[in-house]
Amino acid sequence: MKNKIRLGILGGGGDSLIGIVHRIASSMHDSYEIIGGVFNPDYNENLKFAEEIGLDKKRIYEDYEKMIEEELKLDESERVQVVSILTPNFLHYPMAKKLLENNFNVICEKPMTTTYAEAKDLENIYKSKNLTFAVTYTYTGYPMIRQMKEMIKSGVIGDIQRVDLQYYQGWINPIIHDSSKRSETWRLQPEKSGISCCIGDIGTHAFDMLEYVTGMEVKELLSDLNYVYDDNTMDVDGTILIRFSDKIKGVIRASQIATGEENNFTVAIYGKKGGLKWEQQNPNYLYHLSDTDPMKVLKPGHDYNSNFSKISAKLPPGHPEGMFDSMANIYNGVAREINGNKEFDGEYPTLNDGLRGMLFIEKAVESHKNGNKWVKLN
Amino acid sequence: MKNKIRLGILGGGGDSLIGIVHRIASSMHDSYEIIGGVFNPDYNENLKFAEEIGLDKKRIYEDYEKMIEEELKLDESERVQVVSILTPNFLHYPMAKKLLENNFNVICEKPMTTTYAEAKDLENIYKSKNLTFAVTYTYTGYPMIRQMKEMIKSGVIGDIQRVDLQYYQGWINPIIHDSSKRSETWRLQPEKSGISCCIGDIGTHAFDMLEYVTGMEVKELLSDLNYVYDDNTMDVDGTILIRFSDKIKGVIRASQIATGEENNFTVAIYGKKGGLKWEQQNPNYLYHLSDTDPMKVLKPGHDYNSNFSKISAKLPPGHPEGMFDSMANIYNGVAREINGNKEFDGEYPTLNDGLRGMLFIEKAVESHKNGNKWVKLN
Amino acid sequence: MKNKIRLGILGGGGDSLIGIVHRIASSMHDSYEIIGGVFNPDYNENLKFAEEIGLDKKRIYEDYEKMIEEELKLDESERVQVVSILTPNFLHYPMAKKLLENNFNVICEKPMTTTYAEAKDLENIYKSKNLTFAVTYTYTGYPMIRQMKEMIKSGVIGDIQRVDLQYYQGWINPIIHDSSKRSETWRLQPEKSGISCCIGDIGTHAFDMLEYVTGMEVKELLSDLNYVYDDNTMDVDGTILIRFSDKIKGVIRASQIATGEENNFTVAIYGKKGGLKWEQQNPNYLYHLSDTDPMKVLKPGHDYNSNFSKISAKLPPGHPEGMFDSMANIYNGVAREINGNKEFDGEYPTLNDGLRGMLFIEKAVESHKNGNKWVKLN
Amino acid sequence: MKNKIRLGILGGGGDSLIGIVHRIASSMHDSYEIIGGVFNPDYNENLKFAEEIGLDKKRIYEDYEKMIEEELKLDESERVQVVSILTPNFLHYPMAKKLLENNFNVICEKPMTTTYAEAKDLENIYKSKNLTFAVTYTYTGYPMIRQMKEMIKSGVIGDIQRVDLQYYQGWINPIIHDSSKRSETWRLQPEKSGISCCIGDIGTHAFDMLEYVTGMEVKELLSDLNYVYDDNTMDVDGTILIRFSDKIKGVIRASQIATGEENNFTVAIYGKKGGLKWEQQNPNYLYHLSDTDPMKVLKPGHDYNSNFSKISAKLPPGHPEGMFDSMANIYNGVAREINGNKEFDGEYPTLNDGLRGMLFIEKAVESHKNGNKWVKLN
Repeated sequence: MKNKIRLGILGGGGDSLIGIVHRIASSMHDSYEIIGGVFNPDYNENLKFAEEIGLDKKRIYEDYEKMIEEELKLDESERVQVVSILTPNFLHYPMAKKLLENNFNVICEKPMTTTYAEAKDLENIYKSKNLTFAVTYTYTGYPMIRQMKEMIKSGVIGDIQRVDLQYYQGWINPIIHDSSKRSETWRLQPEKSGISCCIGDIGTHAFDMLEYVTGMEVKELLSDLNYVYDDNTMDVDGTILIRFSDKIKGVIRASQIATGEENNFTVAIYGKKGGLKWEQQNPNYLYHLSDTDPMKVLKPGHDYNSNFSKISAKLPPGHPEGMFDSMANIYNGVAREINGNKEFDGEYPTLNDGLRGMLFIEKAVESHKNGNKWVKLN
Repeated sequence: MKNKIRLGILGGGGDSLIGIVHRIASSMHDSYEIIGGVFNPDYNENLKFAEEIGLDKKRIYEDYEKMIEEELKLDESERVQVVSILTPNFLHYPMAKKLLENNFNVICEKPMTTTYAEAKDLENIYKSKNLTFAVTYTYTGYPMIRQMKEMIKSGVIGDIQRVDLQYYQGWINPIIHDSSKRSETWRLQPEKSGISCCIGDIGTHAFDMLEYVTGMEVKELLSDLNYVYDDNTMDVDGTILIRFSDKIKGVIRASQIATGEENNFTVAIYGKKGGLKWEQQNPNYLYHLSDTDPMKVLKPGHDYNSNFSKISAKLPPGHPEGMFDSMANIYNGVAREINGNKEFDGEYPTLNDGLRGMLFIEKAVESHKNGNKWVKLN
Repeated sequence: MKNKIRLGILGGGGDSLIGIVHRIASSMHDSYEIIGGVFNPDYNENLKFAEEIGLDKKRIYEDYEKMIEEELKLDESERVQVVSILTPNFLHYPMAKKLLENNFNVICEKPMTTTYAEAKDLENIYKSKNLTFAVTYTYTGYPMIRQMKEMIKSGVIGDIQRVDLQYYQGWINPIIHDSSKRSETWRLQPEKSGISCCIGDIGTHAFDMLEYVTGMEVKELLSDLNYVYDDNTMDVDGTILIRFSDKIKGVIRASQIATGEENNFTVAIYGKKGGLKWEQQNPNYLYHLSDTDPMKVLKPGHDYNSNFSKISAKLPPGHPEGMFDSMANIYNGVAREINGNKEFDGEYPTLNDGLRGMLFIEKAVESHKNGNKWVKLN
Repeated sequence: MKNKIRLGILGGGGDSLIGIVHRIASSMHDSYEIIGGVFNPDYNENLKFAEEIGLDKKRIYEDYEKMIEEELKLDESERVQVVSILTPNFLHYPMAKKLLENNFNVICEKPMTTTYAEAKDLENIYKSKNLTFAVTYTYTGYPMIRQMKEMIKSGVIGDIQRVDLQYYQGWINPIIHDSSKRSETWRLQPEKSGISCCIGDIGTHAFDMLEYVTGMEVKELLSDLNYVYDDNTMDVDGTILIRFSDKIKGVIRASQIATGEENNFTVAIYGKKGGLKWEQQNPNYLYHLSDTDPMKVLKPGHDYNSNFSKISAKLPPGHPEGMFDSMANIYNGVAREINGNKEFDGEYPTLNDGLRGMLFIEKAVESHKNGNKWVKLN
């Protein structure tokens, strides 16, 4: 019999998009019960929101420190087991640190921290504990991404020789060209968003995905970013040359000024024996290319998929699942680990994924600022 | 402030697919709380399942009659407000009847009943009450279907002159050609499944969708069904000629022997000024054709959509939603009506949709059995 | 060494679209030389056009009877060997008849004649001769259609159980709704276009394709056509139920009022072991579905294709060919037969294809006019 | 009345693919007559081939110098007017030079020469003459590429801010990993193929296309190429960062080890007001994105296209044209210029396109060899 995992939430109140995503994702596999948390810095708003989503007010707290203090007073059988951090980025680090130190499992939105140094610090604490720490690179939860990962691991496309990832959006276009808008949006203010806009927000998704599906570590990169205006200090577009080695290369392309693009994230991995391609906007299709055979189009829910892909689809073939389901698979992965049922590598993105993500952002900006030079990623 | 609606569930226990769909759908908009119900005819299984999905056992009942009896004893402020019927088809009618008679709102899986006569009886009871009754034709909840409905209503494609709907699956192919399998599956046994397999199961989806998006009633049909083997008494394939009038015609095509098809449901409506096309397997795309302009591809979440479509998407453009989200929109429609916020025609499929569906099934079989003659739908 | 085949042309002068198609098609395989013919009923226009396309005027004739008379005077080594008939439909029969009687090979545009009786008469003459007679159902020349034919023949999808063909256009929409336009266009005048507009023009393509790819004969049909206005006597839309037998059924759907559609011709054939799908507007893709395996996407020019498909592609994979190339494959088939190199069934559509096409048109109209009754096709 | 242009051909005999492409292209608009040339270095093969394709032997020559000498003896009204150069690359320069010097118009396959220095020399001669010189970057002839060029020119997508071109093939994959094959293929031998394989062969197509559709000159590039094996001296893969300016950037990606890719050439151009995307493998679709409106899908032959696009399509919408038609549009452009009917910028790629292409190849290799440094393109 399954016991529901007791989940606390920090942030994500009101109309927060990421709030809805995590609430729905946590409910989809009947594995979690939301116990309480801190949805809003304003305590009254916090209470009001808790009521709206049907929660008991008893375990709605004034701030995360209070929450930790109070929860620790409860018996382990009642205490919140996992806490999801959905706050603005600069709060991720202090919250995650304190939660780890007090032996709570953590599900943290990306980017994990605002600097690589903070991320290293979290890693140190994490290594001294026996806890689960997930970073929600949402797209790694799609069934066909997991199928891609398994196919690459089992050698279906042979040794990798070319990689190409694209993450194109156009949403910042109307902002960047308006001098007042671009000076006012928090997304383009380093003090609020860290050192990078485009690479930090979407380039990291591509980077994590690349290491996730290939199971390999990028060794060095060379980047060319675009700030578009001299008074703008945050990149909104960039191309990043990637090397796994001198003989295995590729590129990550990210843009928020690809006008008219919505969320056009694509992954293409080519090996000696074939290629695999996927598009986030049609996530239920995986394209398998080969030198000699017709292209194959794989879809979720079929017996021909790997077990890891199969446990990641709830509906039969032809009944489309979407982004909530992808995030739900990550939540389910955390639940499976906590419940001792973890079976596959990659059921959720780990603290190490978060750490590599921070390294990638810092190095991509460094390469650009140093005149587009190669920089190593370790 | 929003109060959660108290939801009871009949059926859908264990690994039931439809059970998961309704549970997830009911949770997606934070509008419902599952209070209890009867998930399984075996009471012990029932209790066990309730525990698995984290429900209190207090309001898990032995059967639906007991549930009604006990719930009526509770104060209105605690009593279940809506009951979802997810049982085998032959139970829909008695359950729905008793629920309506006792003033519960109902969400009923399709087909609504097993005969048109039963459906008419439900209609009579329903008309004497002031209750909400939804029939879960799931696909009507997709944002781009709702956009299609609104565009047709507002005259974007002009008067309709040709309609074409396809619902192709291949799942029964390995069963139909194996004489023992085809005699054993309940899907091909009239006593368990009613008078039709393919038309009853998927043809009705197409029929309902046609009347939903056009806002018009089909006047007559002529059908040719395929039973494939002489010892098989249930259709597995059919083509149904459709007339709205002598001058407005079209076709519904449905098959479960379209080998290799998953759930290939498509809708194409052509009017004097343009056409609209949609495919369930890529539900986030709506194609708008015209005589003179380039084809337009509409997607959910954009400002160019109608309000009804906009309230039906939770994520920004480019973040795909799927079938759970579509069902969740229907649940949300019911919730909005119960909460007095209903704003649009078609927020959920009504009892009348269920009634028309039963009429369609009976008439499609009648037309075929009478030698492919036209029959009227009223 | 290859000798070029001497080709004469009747019709297709001026800006005639079909004229360009046949000229280009005849040149693509270096197999034909256009010798002369009658491009235009006006002799001066005829001469002028011949000069424009770079032909010697010596063998430009006043009419087809004169052409036959004069060509017969020439030595066989100089005489035109094949004549392409590209005139309005009502001239096909007298021209083809006289050409056959005088031992010329014939390439005839579709429809082959204006009545089935004429078609039968041509068949009688043809049977007494040893000549090549092709009817240019252009789309049968596409490499992936030929691949489909070969795959079906070799049993890849098993016994056929469901067929579905669509030919949707929207071009007549602006004409049909304008009472003066619809009374003036020759396409809607029976004396100029025969008894059917939509079925005769495009429905026949679908019908021929169906028999071409399956290698089977349709046994009976039931049709429902749409004339849209009472003062219009020619169908512009129709759905035709198809039976190969009581157990093998399907549908042909054709429309010229599918507003916004260009030339949307699709073919789907489902068998016990799989399905094959193709779309004329993206003719270089063939989709192979199966119960158990991922969908395969076949493309021209690959080694995995059949020999018949391979000889039908001139360019390597990924270099798209189009409709001219398809027609050129039919011309090449005729040339290969005349040169004694014919290797495959179906290198060009035969007189029998033309005959079946006329039967289909007459029976489709008959079924509709008799109140949508089944009629046999033999 | 139209006079056919007298065309001579150098190279392209036997089964040469490029030979067929040019012959078909030259015939498609009824504008050219092939008069003679040198198809093969072996004179007997040359004669034999001429007979096969139906040419008179009188003007089949032993070599190009003889051809020039003899043709000059003829009256201008009979003399070859244009010569197409289809030989191996190293012969392009001497042939083109001598042809220009003797006042023949030239159609030259790409790459125009083997070095930038040779290309500059041709430019000098060309500038002193009043001749037409075309370099056959085939893909610039597609109707939707021309539509893209016109839309950009007229400001439809506003000032350009991001460009992204991909040319992915997989054909060299089975060669590169086999040490004997990779040492033997002429494509990987600098003395036969120049200094670059992948960038020289397909990267140049992308570069030319970029400058063609944008009407802008690339200012600098930084490239990272991949040779895969130490004993291989020719690139088979590369990523090239592109700058029009500090604020307008992008990337060209080219690979011949993208295993399973056929000829996957894509073009994406984003401006302040929208984006345009195109794929060579489905060349009849142009995607127009915007911030605010649904994506539009433009197709050839429609009135909504520019005049330049319209004259580049021969068939009505929905009747696909392919690569031959694209090349034919370039031939037609040359013919229109020679006949004094040239109307649009870009009816054929010019000598300057060929010159820029050579500069691009040399600079891409230089950047890579110098440790991935920025190099200027002028």
